[in-house]
Amino acid sequence: MIVNVVKIGGNIVDSPLALKAFLEDLAAMEGPKVLVHGGGKEATRLSAALGIETVMIDGRRVTDRETLDVVTMTYAGLINKRIVAMLQALGCNALGLSGADANVIPARRRNPQPVDYGYVGDIDPACINAQFLSTQTQYLVPVLCAICHDGQGSLLNCNADSVAAAVAAALAGSGCAVRLTYCFEKPGVMLDVDDDSSVIPLVTAASFEQLKADGIVAKGMIPKIHNALESVRKGVREVRICQASDLRREGGTIIRQE
Amino acid sequence: MIVNVVKIGGNIVDSPLALKAFLEDLAAMEGPKVLVHGGGKEATRLSAALGIETVMIDGRRVTDRETLDVVTMTYAGLINKRIVAMLQALGCNALGLSGADANVIPARRRNPQPVDYGYVGDIDPACINAQFLSTQTQYLVPVLCAICHDGQGSLLNCNADSVAAAVAAALAGSGCAVRLTYCFEKPGVMLDVDDDSSVIPLVTAASFEQLKADGIVAKGMIPKIHNALESVRKGVREVRICQASDLRREGGTIIRQE
Repeated sequence: MIVNVVKIGGNIVDSPLALKAFLEDLAAMEGPKVLVHGGGKEATRLSAALGIETVMIDGRRVTDRETLDVVTMTYAGLINKRIVAMLQALGCNALGLSGADANVIPARRRNPQPVDYGYVGDIDPACINAQFLSTQTQYLVPVLCAICHDGQGSLLNCNADSVAAAVAAALAGSGCAVRLTYCFEKPGVMLDVDDDSSVIPLVTAASFEQLKADGIVAKGMIPKIHNALESVRKGVREVRICQASDLRREGGTIIRQE
Repeated sequence: MIVNVVKIGGNIVDSPLALKAFLEDLAAMEGPKVLVHGGGKEATRLSAALGIETVMIDGRRVTDRETLDVVTMTYAGLINKRIVAMLQALGCNALGLSGADANVIPARRRNPQPVDYGYVGDIDPACINAQFLSTQTQYLVPVLCAICHDGQGSLLNCNADSVAAAVAAALAGSGCAVRLTYCFEKPGVMLDVDDDSSVIPLVTAASFEQLKADGIVAKGMIPKIHNALESVRKGVREVRICQASDLRREGGTIIRQE
């Protein structure tokens, strides 16, 4: 049976209607599944309300002690528990988790050179407690936020895309057949970012090289596809990048080894 | 084997040194255990920082929509995950939970008559998912905050003392031998609140009636002992009220049926 790992970002988390529609689709999906969520917009709002400046470098949040508290409250508290309560109301038994819970995702604080991101962590899929997750998926839906821990008592702010990729790779490594879906604001990887009908249905390792050589894939998509191919190389059956509203439909871009 | 259910309040949660010492003692305790924590002081501070007025009626927090977000962030996010990360660093595998997670503690929103507390919930021990908790205690330490849910998608702010009592009663009802410990700022139930050496070592249903009749038990302690006796009537072997620093020592007041 296929385990679905699904990642949603701040754009869905931030819209009560979009979130409700998405969670209805997720609850209706058959088989074992894991949800990973972001929530950066809510964290930025709370920081602003508390007079804490948000500093982003290359799209990553610089996480000092105060900001770590903000993201812990927002991701592991507000958003995670809201999602869990909404899933319960849909008859879908869910278990909200940070990476510290059950030691599911130990992380390593990122080297402060060349950029000191503060309490930001990186994850090694080999360290993930895949057995706990795969056992839980037999009974319920683990809902993971991207707050992890260093095993020394400190929480760490990780990237939700990376958490989803690492969890998918770890489950694949433990023998599960895994499909990883990134829900995205766009309908997939597109030839023309302004044309929703230009979605590329399939990208493989070979076609990615060609797309890059031809300068067709937009700059921001290159690391996304690169990471998706990395997941595939680690044993994930397929990665899909699609709109949240397409979760239970065909569509979007599928990334496979070949 | 005895399952220990231990409750700590805001006075310990709020002091990094006291919390660390307490968690070291908890981690060193043998056998299955469940931790329940409060955290009202931190929630009051966050409310103040956000310009939200804290309204307490009879010691209970009036919980409007904004305050529900504050307590969810504080209890289920910041404090719960801090405790879990600290326990992991002590080699004690912990799993942080709200009542919504795995549907562990469904609650019922309190009747708005005679006092409308807003999103405040009450718990029926018979509805608690004792099987999930007792299974988890075989592998790890569940760490519960007092954020529960109504099963209809709404989180509810519950009382941490009541959560501890309900969890203890539910575990007892499922066949576990349970000891419930309330960690308190005082060394126990005292004949004279200003004299730490006046701790009453044992209170039974019969002696409680006598203590009340003689006017010996201080007013604020009456509901605490009443609730403890209620737990005992529901099958909890014994309830102890003691200082956090006495967790692994003798001391405090033991409350038993007889």
